[in-house]
Amino acid sequence: MIKLYEYPSSGNCYKIRLLLTQLEIPFERITVDILKKESRTPEFLSKNPNGRVPLLELEPGKFLPESNAVLYYFSQDTDFFPTDKFEQAQVMQWMFFEQYSHEPYIATSRYWISIVGKPEEYKQALEQKQPLGYAALGVMENQLKDHPFFGGDHYTIADICLFAYTHVAHEGGFDLTHFPAISAWINRVKEQPNYISITE
Amino acid sequence: MIKLYEYPSSGNCYKIRLLLTQLEIPFERITVDILKKESRTPEFLSKNPNGRVPLLELEPGKFLPESNAVLYYFSQDTDFFPTDKFEQAQVMQWMFFEQYSHEPYIATSRYWISIVGKPEEYKQALEQKQPLGYAALGVMENQLKDHPFFGGDHYTIADICLFAYTHVAHEGGFDLTHFPAISAWINRVKEQPNYISITE
Repeated sequence: MIKLYEYPSSGNCYKIRLLLTQLEIPFERITVDILKKESRTPEFLSKNPNGRVPLLELEPGKFLPESNAVLYYFSQDTDFFPTDKFEQAQVMQWMFFEQYSHEPYIATSRYWISIVGKPEEYKQALEQKQPLGYAALGVMENQLKDHPFFGGDHYTIADICLFAYTHVAHEGGFDLTHFPAISAWINRVKEQPNYISITE
Repeated sequence: MIKLYEYPSSGNCYKIRLLLTQLEIPFERITVDILKKESRTPEFLSKNPNGRVPLLELEPGKFLPESNAVLYYFSQDTDFFPTDKFEQAQVMQWMFFEQYSHEPYIATSRYWISIVGKPEEYKQALEQKQPLGYAALGVMENQLKDHPFFGGDHYTIADICLFAYTHVAHEGGFDLTHFPAISAWINRVKEQPNYISITE
C-alpha cells in the first residue's frame, strides 16, 4: 500500500490526504514529528534528502517528495486535472504561486503561531509576513471574483493546493472577512464529494 | 508573435528564453524594469495581478505568469518533458523544490548583491540565507552524484529551471567549488543544442 510520511496538521500533508481520499485511493499514514526533528534523521534523509514532509512512498523504496508534485502525479488522467493544455498550465501557475507567494507567508505564520505556539518569539517576522500574505490573498480574491475555481470552471488540484493553508489562514493571524470570494470558494471546496477536513 | 515581458537579468525570465530558443520558438522581448517598479503599475497588474515577471502573452490578452508554469506549457509533447508518469512527477518535484527551497535563498541573494547592488544594506538577511542556499545546493549535489540530469538520464525543464540561478550562484555569494557534481552538470547544460547564455 502507498505510504504517506506526514505531520498531520501540515497543510502540505493534508493536500495529499484530501486528493487521495477524493480519488478513493487507500494509503497508510506514518507520522513524522517535525517538532522533534524526525524529518532530519539520517534514516529519513535517506528517503528524502531535502528533509521535509510530506513524502510519498509509492512502492518500497520508490519515493516522491513535494506536495504539489504528488498532487500532480495522482491527478493525471482524472477529473482533478484539466485536459486543455492552457488550462493545465494555469493549474500549474496557481500551484507555483502557492509555493512561492502564499505558503511562505500564510503557512509559516500559522506554523509559528498555532503549531510551534510561540507568536511572541516570532513577532517581528510575523509582522513582515502580514502584508505579503494579504497580497497573496488579494491575488486569489481577484481570480475568484470571476471564476468559481482556480483552474477555471472545475475543481482541480490547484484548488486543493490553495485550500490547504487558506482555509486555516486565521490560525496564522489572517482575517478572511474582507475576502468574500475566497470565503465562498472555501465553502464550494468543502461541498466537493469525499471531502475530509484537515483534522481527519 | 508570443511576447515575453521580462527583466533580462532575472533567472526566472532567462529560463523561458532558454527553453523557447532551444525549441526554436520565436518570441518578442519586452523589458519591464522591476527596479523602477514597472511590474506594479495598474497597466501591468491588469496583465498579471501578482505583479511579477516573467509574464508570457501567448496571444493578445492571453497571459501566463510563473516561469515554471511557462516551462511546463511549452515542454509538453517535446523532448524537454519525460513520457513516463513517475519521471514527469520527478520533474515537477525538482521544479517545486526550486521555487520553495532554492530560489528564495540563492536568487534573492544574487538580487540584493548583484542586481540591486546593496549587499551592506541586506547584510543580516544575506547571512540568514547562506545556510539555506547551501542546503539546497547540497540536495542538488546529492542528486547529481548519481544522475546526469534532474529528470533522470535526459535534459528536461527541471534542468533549465535549476540551472537558471545555480550557474550564477556566485553572483549571490555562493561558492560552488565544493560541489563538483553541480559544476559538471553546469557544463553539461551549456553543451546542450541551441544553448544561450543569460546575457544573450
